[in-house]
Amino acid sequence: MKAKVYVTIKQNVLDPQGSAVQGALHSMGFEEVDKVRIGKYLEFDLDTNDRAQAEARLKDMCEKLLANTVVEDYRFELEG
Amino acid sequence: MKAKVYVTIKQNVLDPQGSAVQGALHSMGFEEVDKVRIGKYLEFDLDTNDRAQAEARLKDMCEKLLANTVVEDYRFELEG
Repeated sequence: MKAKVYVTIKQNVLDPQGSAVQGALHSMGFEEVDKVRIGKYLEFDLDTNDRAQAEARLKDMCEKLLANTVVEDYRFELEG
Repeated sequence: MKAKVYVTIKQNVLDPQGSAVQGALHSMGFEEVDKVRIGKYLEFDLDTNDRAQAEARLKDMCEKLLANTVVEDYRFELEG
């Protein structure tokens, strides 16, 4: 099974990396860009065929390691 | 219009960050995890209603700033 995990900074938390990229895009002439937010995107294989169990395990991985739930949100997709 | 950009490391390029996360997950008991790859995920607003133009501009942004096309791939989605 293939997992895709998206970790994003919460709406009310500042994103200095996003602001920097937005500033760079503006200075390059891409002035239509606004509200840039940058997160992480993880892909990996899961050696299991039990979808419900995989979802529970993924949630656990996100809570314990992949996302800092104080300032970040996460969501994931399972394929196959 | 809302843009979502995914920047991932090319298949044949080493991903030390992914390897480190995989090692950490294994040591925490998540041994079913394999082939972890970590990329970037960007979300932003585009102040335009011309979809074709937005796609061309987005491609330009990715090539010029958001992705290092020597070692990274990118893809994007437009919504709205």
